Amino acid sequence: MKGLLAWWEGCCVSSKPLRFVDLNLRGIGQVMFQDNPLSGLLFFIAIGWGSYAAGMPQVAIGGLVAVVAATLTAQWLRVDAADLGAGLYGYNAYLVGLALGTFLTVSPLWWVYVALGGAVSVPATLGTANVFKTWGVAALTAPFVLTAWLFLLATYAFSAIGGGALPMTAEIAPLDPAAANPLAFGDFVQGIFRSIAQVFLKASLLAALLLLVGLAVNSLAAAVSALAGAIVAVATAHLLGVESDLIAGGLMGFSPVLTAIALGTVFYKPGVKVAIYALVGTVFTVIVQGAMNVALTPFGVPTLTGPFVLASWIFLLPRQHFERA
Amino acid sequence: MKGLLAWWEGCCVSSKPLRFVDLNLRGIGQVMFQDNPLSGLLFFIAIGWGSYAAGMPQVAIGGLVAVVAATLTAQWLRVDAADLGAGLYGYNAYLVGLALGTFLTVSPLWWVYVALGGAVSVPATLGTANVFKTWGVAALTAPFVLTAWLFLLATYAFSAIGGGALPMTAEIAPLDPAAANPLAFGDFVQGIFRSIAQVFLKASLLAALLLLVGLAVNSLAAAVSALAGAIVAVATAHLLGVESDLIAGGLMGFSPVLTAIALGTVFYKPGVKVAIYALVGTVFTVIVQGAMNVALTPFGVPTLTGPFVLASWIFLLPRQHFERA
Amino acid sequence: MKGLLAWWEGCCVSSKPLRFVDLNLRGIGQVMFQDNPLSGLLFFIAIGWGSYAAGMPQVAIGGLVAVVAATLTAQWLRVDAADLGAGLYGYNAYLVGLALGTFLTVSPLWWVYVALGGAVSVPATLGTANVFKTWGVAALTAPFVLTAWLFLLATYAFSAIGGGALPMTAEIAPLDPAAANPLAFGDFVQGIFRSIAQVFLKASLLAALLLLVGLAVNSLAAAVSALAGAIVAVATAHLLGVESDLIAGGLMGFSPVLTAIALGTVFYKPGVKVAIYALVGTVFTVIVQGAMNVALTPFGVPTLTGPFVLASWIFLLPRQHFERA
Repeated sequence: MKGLLAWWEGCCVSSKPLRFVDLNLRGIGQVMFQDNPLSGLLFFIAIGWGSYAAGMPQVAIGGLVAVVAATLTAQWLRVDAADLGAGLYGYNAYLVGLALGTFLTVSPLWWVYVALGGAVSVPATLGTANVFKTWGVAALTAPFVLTAWLFLLATYAFSAIGGGALPMTAEIAPLDPAAANPLAFGDFVQGIFRSIAQVFLKASLLAALLLLVGLAVNSLAAAVSALAGAIVAVATAHLLGVESDLIAGGLMGFSPVLTAIALGTVFYKPGVKVAIYALVGTVFTVIVQGAMNVALTPFGVPTLTGPFVLASWIFLLPRQHFERA
Repeated sequence: MKGLLAWWEGCCVSSKPLRFVDLNLRGIGQVMFQDNPLSGLLFFIAIGWGSYAAGMPQVAIGGLVAVVAATLTAQWLRVDAADLGAGLYGYNAYLVGLALGTFLTVSPLWWVYVALGGAVSVPATLGTANVFKTWGVAALTAPFVLTAWLFLLATYAFSAIGGGALPMTAEIAPLDPAAANPLAFGDFVQGIFRSIAQVFLKASLLAALLLLVGLAVNSLAAAVSALAGAIVAVATAHLLGVESDLIAGGLMGFSPVLTAIALGTVFYKPGVKVAIYALVGTVFTVIVQGAMNVALTPFGVPTLTGPFVLASWIFLLPRQHFERA
Repeated sequence: MKGLLAWWEGCCVSSKPLRFVDLNLRGIGQVMFQDNPLSGLLFFIAIGWGSYAAGMPQVAIGGLVAVVAATLTAQWLRVDAADLGAGLYGYNAYLVGLALGTFLTVSPLWWVYVALGGAVSVPATLGTANVFKTWGVAALTAPFVLTAWLFLLATYAFSAIGGGALPMTAEIAPLDPAAANPLAFGDFVQGIFRSIAQVFLKASLLAALLLLVGLAVNSLAAAVSALAGAIVAVATAHLLGVESDLIAGGLMGFSPVLTAIALGTVFYKPGVKVAIYALVGTVFTVIVQGAMNVALTPFGVPTLTGPFVLASWIFLLPRQHFERA
């Protein structure tokens, strides 16, 4: 693996086009915190397969358009070379593209909208990072969530951009207990893997496996954390009586998966105490996911990874209490 | 009084269990900014009485469970000893416990939920304090409001946690003027005292008197500010034509009471100019209370002390203009 | 022009009342970033005419009451003399007064409400500036938006303050495409000029011309940016299929106009790259305007200049990438 990456790095040093590909792949890898072009490539293939299998190729293509637009914008803005080289200006854009591909209808104007979303995610990333470095905390996917919420909400006011797949607006009401049936074991297992795939807005089991492989090639700890986070999230959500369809679809688990990786392996040095802290943070993320599902019900937009961002910031901002990784 | 506190401090120095009790009492005292175990004890008795009289012992017990969970969490996280010793890691948790006891239905899982809420309030407090110390301003009860909103909102998505006492969701509409009848003198006086008790989510008059005593044993100025703040709030709300039931129940006054104490006695050095500033801040808090009552109408959760936090931050952030206490 | 301003400055140096007038005029000028009493006077006349022509003199008078209340408050709080002298404590208050005059019903209590709103805008301005100077970014009109939202939202809870002209609350729903008809050329041109006048909440064409003159006497670049921003906004909104009535009324363009001036001439040194950046920011502001129109639909309050604040902060916070003006 190391030899492969060294060979690729050698190719990139001497070729501007290959370096550009490398930047974009690392950007995709950073969706799950991995600064590794091979992880990015595996994630890209996973999402490509997931989109194709779901009959929605525009999701994967939207992601590609947005991440390329972002990388070009970042180069034009002459952002910090080390950060750009680590893919930190790509992951938010890639997610923006996936979200606009998932929830909006393709049209000629849609392409412009996606590219603009990718481009705007760059100042949003720079700005958020500028603010949160004050407290030694990363921007996480906040730039994605902010940009995508704005671009999705606005479609209700724009008749030339169709938001056909957005969740319907509704009044907030308590959940009907009948919707929270005991999960069958198969649903439980599917919910776990789909929780991993839903980080990229997909529900495919094969995509989940490819994502785990993509994590493992760069960090086995990250892959284990992702899987453990998904199990904890699905079990917690079921215990709390969440609607079974949401759990089985992976929609209660994708934010907790990210929290588990972030708290357990990225921002704190792994250890017993950190594992307990990450566990509590992961359970808390399920509650935040429930709360944000409710709070956004009247607005007709999805939470995206907002619960991960909010819960992880709450657990990262008191950072003085563990050694940092 | 001084002798009593010195004797108690002597007991705590030599006994770990008593020190633990002391930490929790100071935590309860800090709900109204008092770093004094006797104030905390009187507040605790007041809320115990109020809960018992209202037939809702789970409120006082919930508060106790949450504050103990928070103190244990803070010790496990090895937070700053001086801050812990001053009760700064307890007041948010105590309020979380009172809120979850007030609005949710007791069940076996409810106990876990309350303890988790108390525990999570500790990183929330550390994080908020970390952010706001950038501008020399305290976290106030923001960690409580944030944590409790999340834990309350989420119950609409959780069939295993019942939110039976949450306010019903509704569309925003102008107030029917008939609901803002002239208050009788008795209602006016009750509204004043209940505004003080509602800081702890209770409507009991006896509790209000005990709370005033609890304030006075540590700071007469704080007790006077609380009473003055309540009078100003009830009069302002009535002048603006607020629903009489809200005013008489103390629900327009609890945030202004906290603003009056905070601006008038805690964060600025008392004086004529500060008194005027605190008066304007208190009146403004009534308007913020009205605004947040409206803004939260579609979400089915109460404002908690959100109006106090927002209004006080606005009046504390320009802190260069008075000598600090 | 220079001679006229020098003569006026001479008058103000020797006369406290004239200096007070000067402070308020500069406050009005700062609504569009101009520290120039003549710009302020022309803006004041424009709004006076617009209010009179619309049969709503309370708008211009409300603005005057609020800006005077704010200047007195700022003097009482002994704010920084240079900032006060540049009008930085007046523009938010003036806008608060215009907004409360536009959306609320005049009554005896209304006058107090407007004066209080103007006064409260001063700590709000101090606090916001204190926070955002951490990242080298201005408060923009955030203090106005925050204060006015609170004072407008609260009227739904206050039967003694009438919010008769507030937008009606409604559920969010996709726009009927029939509402986005092709604009006639006349509507297009009106939309451009009204976009400029709507910065001050007016729809008058003559007011727009006076505002452009007021900009030009201090900064020709600002006047050109405003006009260019309005053209870009109207064209973008039309392309995206926004409701034609909103575009023709200037309601999609006033925030983009401010973004164009801010990014194009005030906070970055003008140049080709900055012009492109400002153009993208202006287009993005149209999307944010659409998103906030949607998000506020259930709350029954207007966006005010919230879209300008949010979009411009996103484009200003990564400030390291251009030389600052």
